[in-house]
Amino acid sequence: MTRIAVINPNTTASMTATIAYAARLVAAPTTEIIPVTSSMGPVSIEGYYDEAFALPGLLREIGKAEREGAAAAVIACFDDTGLDAARAMARMPVIGICEAALVTAAFIAKRFTVVTTMERSRVPIEELVHRYGMAGRARVRAANIAVLSLEDPNSGARDRLRSEIVRAIAEDNAEAIVLGCAGMADLAKTLSQEFGLPVIDGVGAAVKQAEALVALGLTTSKRGAYAAPLVKRYEGALAEFAPV
Amino acid sequence: MTRIAVINPNTTASMTATIAYAARLVAAPTTEIIPVTSSMGPVSIEGYYDEAFALPGLLREIGKAEREGAAAAVIACFDDTGLDAARAMARMPVIGICEAALVTAAFIAKRFTVVTTMERSRVPIEELVHRYGMAGRARVRAANIAVLSLEDPNSGARDRLRSEIVRAIAEDNAEAIVLGCAGMADLAKTLSQEFGLPVIDGVGAAVKQAEALVALGLTTSKRGAYAAPLVKRYEGALAEFAPV
Amino acid sequence: MTRIAVINPNTTASMTATIAYAARLVAAPTTEIIPVTSSMGPVSIEGYYDEAFALPGLLREIGKAEREGAAAAVIACFDDTGLDAARAMARMPVIGICEAALVTAAFIAKRFTVVTTMERSRVPIEELVHRYGMAGRARVRAANIAVLSLEDPNSGARDRLRSEIVRAIAEDNAEAIVLGCAGMADLAKTLSQEFGLPVIDGVGAAVKQAEALVALGLTTSKRGAYAAPLVKRYEGALAEFAPV
Amino acid sequence: MTRIAVINPNTTASMTATIAYAARLVAAPTTEIIPVTSSMGPVSIEGYYDEAFALPGLLREIGKAEREGAAAAVIACFDDTGLDAARAMARMPVIGICEAALVTAAFIAKRFTVVTTMERSRVPIEELVHRYGMAGRARVRAANIAVLSLEDPNSGARDRLRSEIVRAIAEDNAEAIVLGCAGMADLAKTLSQEFGLPVIDGVGAAVKQAEALVALGLTTSKRGAYAAPLVKRYEGALAEFAPV
Amino acid sequence: MTRIAVINPNTTASMTATIAYAARLVAAPTTEIIPVTSSMGPVSIEGYYDEAFALPGLLREIGKAEREGAAAAVIACFDDTGLDAARAMARMPVIGICEAALVTAAFIAKRFTVVTTMERSRVPIEELVHRYGMAGRARVRAANIAVLSLEDPNSGARDRLRSEIVRAIAEDNAEAIVLGCAGMADLAKTLSQEFGLPVIDGVGAAVKQAEALVALGLTTSKRGAYAAPLVKRYEGALAEFAPV
Amino acid sequence: MTRIAVINPNTTASMTATIAYAARLVAAPTTEIIPVTSSMGPVSIEGYYDEAFALPGLLREIGKAEREGAAAAVIACFDDTGLDAARAMARMPVIGICEAALVTAAFIAKRFTVVTTMERSRVPIEELVHRYGMAGRARVRAANIAVLSLEDPNSGARDRLRSEIVRAIAEDNAEAIVLGCAGMADLAKTLSQEFGLPVIDGVGAAVKQAEALVALGLTTSKRGAYAAPLVKRYEGALAEFAPV
Repeated sequence: MTRIAVINPNTTASMTATIAYAARLVAAPTTEIIPVTSSMGPVSIEGYYDEAFALPGLLREIGKAEREGAAAAVIACFDDTGLDAARAMARMPVIGICEAALVTAAFIAKRFTVVTTMERSRVPIEELVHRYGMAGRARVRAANIAVLSLEDPNSGARDRLRSEIVRAIAEDNAEAIVLGCAGMADLAKTLSQEFGLPVIDGVGAAVKQAEALVALGLTTSKRGAYAAPLVKRYEGALAEFAPV
Repeated sequence: MTRIAVINPNTTASMTATIAYAARLVAAPTTEIIPVTSSMGPVSIEGYYDEAFALPGLLREIGKAEREGAAAAVIACFDDTGLDAARAMARMPVIGICEAALVTAAFIAKRFTVVTTMERSRVPIEELVHRYGMAGRARVRAANIAVLSLEDPNSGARDRLRSEIVRAIAEDNAEAIVLGCAGMADLAKTLSQEFGLPVIDGVGAAVKQAEALVALGLTTSKRGAYAAPLVKRYEGALAEFAPV
Repeated sequence: MTRIAVINPNTTASMTATIAYAARLVAAPTTEIIPVTSSMGPVSIEGYYDEAFALPGLLREIGKAEREGAAAAVIACFDDTGLDAARAMARMPVIGICEAALVTAAFIAKRFTVVTTMERSRVPIEELVHRYGMAGRARVRAANIAVLSLEDPNSGARDRLRSEIVRAIAEDNAEAIVLGCAGMADLAKTLSQEFGLPVIDGVGAAVKQAEALVALGLTTSKRGAYAAPLVKRYEGALAEFAPV
Repeated sequence: MTRIAVINPNTTASMTATIAYAARLVAAPTTEIIPVTSSMGPVSIEGYYDEAFALPGLLREIGKAEREGAAAAVIACFDDTGLDAARAMARMPVIGICEAALVTAAFIAKRFTVVTTMERSRVPIEELVHRYGMAGRARVRAANIAVLSLEDPNSGARDRLRSEIVRAIAEDNAEAIVLGCAGMADLAKTLSQEFGLPVIDGVGAAVKQAEALVALGLTTSKRGAYAAPLVKRYEGALAEFAPV
Repeated sequence: MTRIAVINPNTTASMTATIAYAARLVAAPTTEIIPVTSSMGPVSIEGYYDEAFALPGLLREIGKAEREGAAAAVIACFDDTGLDAARAMARMPVIGICEAALVTAAFIAKRFTVVTTMERSRVPIEELVHRYGMAGRARVRAANIAVLSLEDPNSGARDRLRSEIVRAIAEDNAEAIVLGCAGMADLAKTLSQEFGLPVIDGVGAAVKQAEALVALGLTTSKRGAYAAPLVKRYEGALAEFAPV
Repeated sequence: MTRIAVINPNTTASMTATIAYAARLVAAPTTEIIPVTSSMGPVSIEGYYDEAFALPGLLREIGKAEREGAAAAVIACFDDTGLDAARAMARMPVIGICEAALVTAAFIAKRFTVVTTMERSRVPIEELVHRYGMAGRARVRAANIAVLSLEDPNSGARDRLRSEIVRAIAEDNAEAIVLGCAGMADLAKTLSQEFGLPVIDGVGAAVKQAEALVALGLTTSKRGAYAAPLVKRYEGALAEFAPV
């Protein structure tokens, strides 16, 4: 069995359950999905500030997963929180769900729209879209939904998501939709059938990328930007994270 | 079994064998690789002119593969010859090996170099690098090798390929190498061990992307740019290809 | 007399007549326009799939034109179908009408809008706009017109074209309009007078670029990307096209 | 006869003669080339400061040419000095030789190199290359030549130009060369034969673009960026230039 | 005292007063603001043509200011008129108010909108936005106001400016507003309070940049693009400007 | 007095001393520099991994500084570590030294080169260069120096820095040099005199930007990307950082 750690970098276990469900739905029979909830940091990640404090908890779990034999890891937050740091730390491949979702959409559509939760996440995701070379192809919209409200069927969150997809099709000529939050991972199939176009969930997409890299025998390059951290002292409460 | 057609768009069957070998090496146990050699067009694709005449033979095989139950197709030429036309024609996902290789490299390295065969293929591949949003991350080098000479162990082709990889590491600070020709598909593992950095073969990478899309239940969007061809008459020798 | 071959890469002779009319309207007295209708492939080119099957017929006519003494060729389809392949094949200059129209518009306006026929052609033309370095200057709109309906005065096609020009002026602040289909070639002058801004037809623009290159004594570079095709065998129905 | 004013925006009449020679070499029989030397400003334009003081003299001549019946104007300085101001002033088309040369090169080569005179002109020309959308296709080199030394056969200037072309071919894989100074206008043909690749002179290229726009019946758009200057007072020595 | 010359490149003294007011409002106690009105050229700068004729008067004042001991200069026109020429001429730092305003906005907001006066200034400012690397972050809007009408409280100009800010917030999701004309320099504080988001005036921003460069001991580089003008003759009415 | 907190996000106090020295050298008489050393995290920041663990310590100090009356903060690490998170948290302006240095260089030079310490920091800084819109203007070089070795006069670090500057001038035609590490902050003046071109230190540059924003009365926008963090629970060791 290939073990793929799927890390929820926020501390909300019920959201990890949604993520694990979506991951297992698409994983190969030979893949064991190891869902992990971070034990340190924000209960949901909504903007740059929350991102910063999700990092230590996230990186601890990725390091632990690799030491315990995971072949790859997925960071299940659409901000691709801590992705570069995780790749510098790990030898195994580490996949962000935003990067995986955009790449996957680009194989089946020329133009597509990401629908995310909060307005404050729109610009950070636009920056990722730009960084991954999709600036001419993808637009980003916010449905004005709190992340954790996705779990509450009476919150109206899913209706707002639907309305924004309608706008994306009408105004952006979107050929596909990317769901811009790990908390939407279970909705892809339903929405795809409802709207008659591909709807991509980043968690599933990332699991498949992780499997692909493992099967190809590829690990993170240790030359240049992702070279292993230099051995040094870390002070204070974070001393345990010092590279050795 | 998931059937993935891997189309060699040139007519050289021995090269299809190399491609099939690389494809099967990484395919999932539940995947059946269907290697196909085009029966019409150039014996090797070296530059824009050859590309144009590879299209009808390639598209015929992709159409046939879909009708015969393939779940996805791979175009095994690093120019991603005919990729957009194939996607407009097919419902199943169609993957180009250049696109797949670049995407795969980007998960494990920040900067990488594509080493291709002929100087005349360098600019077309640079255009693909640009189109796929990798212009700031990937350089392209030509090793001055005829495509079919890769099959001849005495041609010196592999030595020239090695020399160019040495230059990519020294001059480009390459963190990974992408092999820029389907005819190099069997060399990735050896070169990776020899040079101590990830070496990516597009054929294997594309097979994994095809499997990923199938597992995710995603097919090519039929809205917008990849909408199904309109029914119309085609004249002369190409009448058989008319959309119906 | 300088002979300029103007190739209609679809097989509809009545559309070639429109093209020839527009070409002759602007040609120098010393230019002989040789209009050619492709004898093989789609009756109209609407999207990537049709493009692929227009290539052999188109390249055959360009090769023939050069052998028979043409000094330059124009490809009269706004997708610039087969342009790179034609340049690799020919020594004479080969001009695409999209490229020529954009370049011409850029001499007299800072911002302009291309109005094309079908939604499915919008993205391919956006890709050309990007490739020709005009992404910050030109927008693309589709008027939702079938190409061949332009020939039918009762189809409403011209009214839809007019409506889209009105929108381009109001919403894009367009300073000039580019007609995004060879089938609109005869409308430039009328629309320019009607709307009081420059309206550019690509066929006329391309004829002038072809004349310019001939007068400057310039032919396609045979170094690098447009180097002459290497001599090799082509298999099957396309054997006649093999480079010799 | 179509009258095309070719304005040398520096005050050196011998350089105007070189420019006029190159312009007439390629002009149509129906074109009358009107060479004009600016009467006010720098004797040669080398860098941003000289450019600024070439403007009033240049714009005076363009205005005068239009009033006297010119159908188009060419600004014969490779910095495209004053191009936007001239277009805002004039109804007739105004062509810059850098823009025309780059556009012309792009029809016959994918990658090319501009060889200019002084290092201080390299960055301004790189900015034009970027503005005209050619940043991925064209490099700029300086041969370290004073502009007026091009007129002196014993200055060594032409040898230094040749050396830089040699480097452009070897190091840039240039497929064509663009001569980056109006003072080189007479050298294109010789250098093209000597080096066996297209060598483009901007003066000739611009004359043909001017003829093209005239034949197409196109004039500068008066909507938006090139709208006619608003009537207002100009103070002091420049009062004569106030828009009326 | 550090003397900073703030040059109004148009000849309207009342506008210089507004500029001087805004400059002094933010200047350090150790800074002496030297407001200067150009004595030659247009009474207001609205588009490319006016810009060209503002240059000699502007450059004369900058040269004079440097000779008289100014430590830095600000060009108080939002088109950054003559900025490159001034930098080539001067050793002291020269700051454009557009560049300074954009840079300042980027420190406190990710996305912002420039509101300028006339539609004909929109594209020139968009070009500056692009040149300064802000194309993905800043939009430009025109409020359709004549520059000098900003001085007339009964002109309705300020109401139109307010309406455009409302649109920028609603439609662009602007996080900050940049005032795109030196004549608006006194409005920043009021509008910021009124709309509850940062409103940036370029004149104040440029004064602070000028002070910063002086305090850092930095002067314009004299290598490359801003190398001192070469000594040469200027003909006619502009002879006085010849570099010596 | 305006209090500006200058935070060294690594825990090495001797490096804070260098930073404080550089900050005070250029600060206005009315500015009080408050140097702060982070008490938690890596002793030096070399690459993505160290960056991640510098964040909590850095953000704690920025929050504390604002509560204690600082008017602005500078993050004194050339990776601009945690800049976006700090801006989301704070109302006062927060300045990164990379952003400030690039912006400052761009006022006095068209092309410049950043010289940083380790190869592993080169790509992260290239990404910042790209993000700040300087991709066409600035190159990044690594001198292969450990950050803390800059403090040891016998380490050879300064000689290696000098060699890299020599290369930047010769090979990049650099018009100015940007020192790409806070630990080099004291070298700018000496190197500038030695090499005869502007050498920019980010710490000094950032202090002046902070002063500028304070004087302009500008604070971080709280609309959109930098909106205040939403109130929520943070789990585990980071609970103290939860937004309230």
